[in-house]
Formats: sequence, structure tokens, C-alpha cells
Amino acid sequence: MDNETEKLTVLKLTETGSSSIEDIVAKESPLTIVLNNRELVTLLCSPVNLKYLAVGFLSSEGLLQSKDEIRRITVDDRRGVVRVETEGNKEPAGDAVFKRFITSGCGRGASFYNAVDAQGQRKVESKIEIPTLQVLALVKEFQHRSQIYRTTGGVHSATLCDAKSIIVFSEDIGRHNAVDKIFGECILNGITTDDRIIITSGRVSSEIVLKIARRNVPIIVSKSAPTNLGVRLADNLGVTLVGFVRGKRMNVYTHAGRIATNAK
Amino acid sequence: MDNETEKLTVLKLTETGSSSIEDIVAKESPLTIVLNNRELVTLLCSPVNLKYLAVGFLSSEGLLQSKDEIRRITVDDRRGVVRVETEGNKEPAGDAVFKRFITSGCGRGASFYNAVDAQGQRKVESKIEIPTLQVLALVKEFQHRSQIYRTTGGVHSATLCDAKSIIVFSEDIGRHNAVDKIFGECILNGITTDDRIIITSGRVSSEIVLKIARRNVPIIVSKSAPTNLGVRLADNLGVTLVGFVRGKRMNVYTHAGRIATNAK
Repeated sequence: MDNETEKLTVLKLTETGSSSIEDIVAKESPLTIVLNNRELVTLLCSPVNLKYLAVGFLSSEGLLQSKDEIRRITVDDRRGVVRVETEGNKEPAGDAVFKRFITSGCGRGASFYNAVDAQGQRKVESKIEIPTLQVLALVKEFQHRSQIYRTTGGVHSATLCDAKSIIVFSEDIGRHNAVDKIFGECILNGITTDDRIIITSGRVSSEIVLKIARRNVPIIVSKSAPTNLGVRLADNLGVTLVGFVRGKRMNVYTHAGRIATNAK
Repeated sequence: MDNETEKLTVLKLTETGSSSIEDIVAKESPLTIVLNNRELVTLLCSPVNLKYLAVGFLSSEGLLQSKDEIRRITVDDRRGVVRVETEGNKEPAGDAVFKRFITSGCGRGASFYNAVDAQGQRKVESKIEIPTLQVLALVKEFQHRSQIYRTTGGVHSATLCDAKSIIVFSEDIGRHNAVDKIFGECILNGITTDDRIIITSGRVSSEIVLKIARRNVPIIVSKSAPTNLGVRLADNLGVTLVGFVRGKRMNVYTHAGRIATNAK
């Protein structure tokens, strides 16, 4: 945990006076990703699991599909640089690289409006079915794991689960980074994402839906709200979108057949 | 409001059964910004005040400083395109454009690590002093104004205030967009940002601090947490950073002299 937070002395003000207190804030650090000796992008992130973040980011951007393509990964934690070398030195040409990266910024791009992206994306196929009570139990476990959030109030969490329990868990100051870290860990450690569930602390926009569809994840669950485009894309791509999980209730926006009601 | 939300029929699940309910979600639409006939970027945003967003974005990216530089703005609401023509056809060359834009993605860039950006940024100078009670009152008013959030749970809000009241208010699915809309409106309508306060619903990362320092805003207030880099940058750039405003208390992370305690 120490690497993810920093202790600061701050002034606490109330209606009646002030006092000096200790506060813990989330760390934010730059990570530069270098693919085949070309500097691609610098992200701001929580400085843990940089290798997972780099690989997950490359996967989300369509520059990497599986571990087999990776020849070498070098992590420089101190300088915040991850170098990835892939088979065949895959590399989109010129401006195209940067144009794609705009997409990845949260709420900052929409390249999937091109045929290449969302329209070329296959529908997610899965026969998974999970009872309502189990979704509620997983979300409860997810919240227990979100320790940094409880300390600093400044990070997002994401997790990959099967119908029974949490498999991979990550935290980051960015909601996209948290999901990318999950996928990077899955790719590097050979963990399948088929027939599984992503839970995220963040709102569900179109970019997050596209990202999880690319890894063939059939269900996304969030405590927060989806956007209308997130709902439409989930509908088109065969993704079950569950939002507003609060207390003992939830809303299912698309493909509700995968959530078994207890009345059944 | 109608243009910012959409009504959907969703399945509400509880421990004991299911029912069909109406839910309201925030709209998410692409906005393409064209500067001097060059397509710069496509953002995902709430489809209102596109003109303000485009101008605020260009300003945050250092491509526009004041209204005088703007020759013409054309807004195509239906297709989500804003064309801006500026005096002298200002335009950074080649990759540089796209590289800068990575910066603007929330938590997705860090070009201010270059001397050109944060290190070239002047410190904010301001003699404004505002009582604790007044900060609490402004935050309360800000929350009342965040109507879409209360309906959909899916958007961020931002506001520009003086020591007495709210001057400009905006909402967007992206926390960066909400702040950019504020600055776009200020630039186009000749509203000064000197000696004023930005309140945001989002967490305060380094990119938000840099953005408000560029418009010479001396105080940023958030209900959420800052990151350690946000705090460090605020300290360096002379910005008062107030976080965790909750109920009757708040934390002041930097330059506390601008917040007058009531004990005084």
C-alpha cells in the first residue's frame, strides 16, 4: 500500500476553527509506455503494477492480443517507464498511433465511431448465468477490497470475478487504468476473461463497454450509472450491463437473461 | 435538460424479485473539434454547450487564449462538430498536435512534465480571501445546482464563483469537460477568472490544477480527494487547494492563507 499513498499534513477547517491533521492522499505518477523502441504515450496512474497497466493498455488499444506476441518487457519503476517489445515489431504508422490514443483518454475520444472499431467488434458470446444474490455478494466483497478508496477517497477499483469469487483486483486513480491493469494481469498470467464478470467503481461509458467486449467479458457491473451510449453499445455487443448496485438492489440495462432472478 | 438525459426501461432486481422500471441516464455524444480546417480531436461529452466545450478545450490545450483570436465559430449540433477559425491560423505542427492531446485525457497524459508546460506556467497571484463559512455556503449552492447528477448519477459538475455567489455552472459526463465548458463560456462572454474560485465534483489531479492555473484561478474546491501530484502542483503554482468538503468541514492542502478561519 505504501507505494500508492502519501501522508500529508493539512489544515482542517470547520465552522468554528482550524487544526492541523494528517491526511492520506493517493499517489499519481507518470508512466511512459515504449512499444518497440517507440515512445507511445505517457499516462498518469497509481504507481503499482506498471507492467500490467502497460500490457492492458496496449491490448485495449488493439496493439497486443496475447502473451505469445510479447518478446520482452522491461520495467523501470523509478523512472516510470515500461518498454515492451513484440514479435514483428507491430506498430501503426505515423499520426494513426496518436489518433488512436486519443480514444483511450476517459471521455476523451471516440474512434470506435469508425468501422474499424465498434462495428468490427464481435458480439460477446457466453452462457454464463448468475443469481441476483450472487451479484450482490460479489459487489459486497469488491467494496471490502477497495481499501485505498476507504483511506484516500481518490481511487477507482476494478475486479474480474467468476460466478463464485474475485479472481483479479486492481486500483488506480483512473477508472480506465484500473480496468486495463486487470486485463494486463490476465494476459500475462494466462487468466481467461471468457464467461467472467468485471465489476468497476466507475460509471459505465461507451469506452469501458468497448474495452470489456474486446476481451470477450459478458457481464459488467457497476455501483455507478451508465451513459446512454454505454447502454446502446452493450446492447449491440451482447454485453450484460448492470448498474446502480446499491444495498440490495440493482438495475439491469441490457441482456438481462444472464442474471437469474430469485423468483425463478 | 432533455438534451442531456434519456429515459430507458430497465429491469430492477432485488433479493426477492424483479420489476420493470423507468430509469434516466446521461447522454454521451461525440464532439469533433475542427481548428482552422484541421480535425483535431473527437471527445465524448454531454451534448450541450458544445461551443463552450470546444473553446475551453482549445484554451486548456494552449491553442487559444482570448476571444480576440477567434474569427469564426460554426456549431453543427446534429452532427456534433464545432469548427473554430482563429487569427493567423494557429496550428502546432504534425505529431505535436496529437501528442499534446494525449495530455488532455483525464489521467491519460503528462506533457506538463516538459519544461514547456507546468514549468513554464506562471504562479497564480491573487489577494482574494474568503471565509470558511462562505466556502461551505458556495459548495452547498453548487450541490443544489447539480440537478442532472441527482437524476442520473452519471455526470460531473463544475462552477466558477466569486466570494459571494455562483457565476457560471456546467455539467458533463467528463470532469475535464465540465471545467473546459466553464472556461469556454468565460472566454466567449468576457467573464474574468482572476480572483475567483472553481468548485468541481471530481477529484483534483495534477491536470485539473494545471488547467485552472492556466486561467489564473487562485482557488480550487472539491468534495473529493486530491492526488499527491495535484497537491504538489497546486503548491508550486500558487493555487489554494481545498478538498473533502463534507458537511461542515474541509481540508486545505495548499496556500491556506486565502481561506479565513472564523476564529480569526
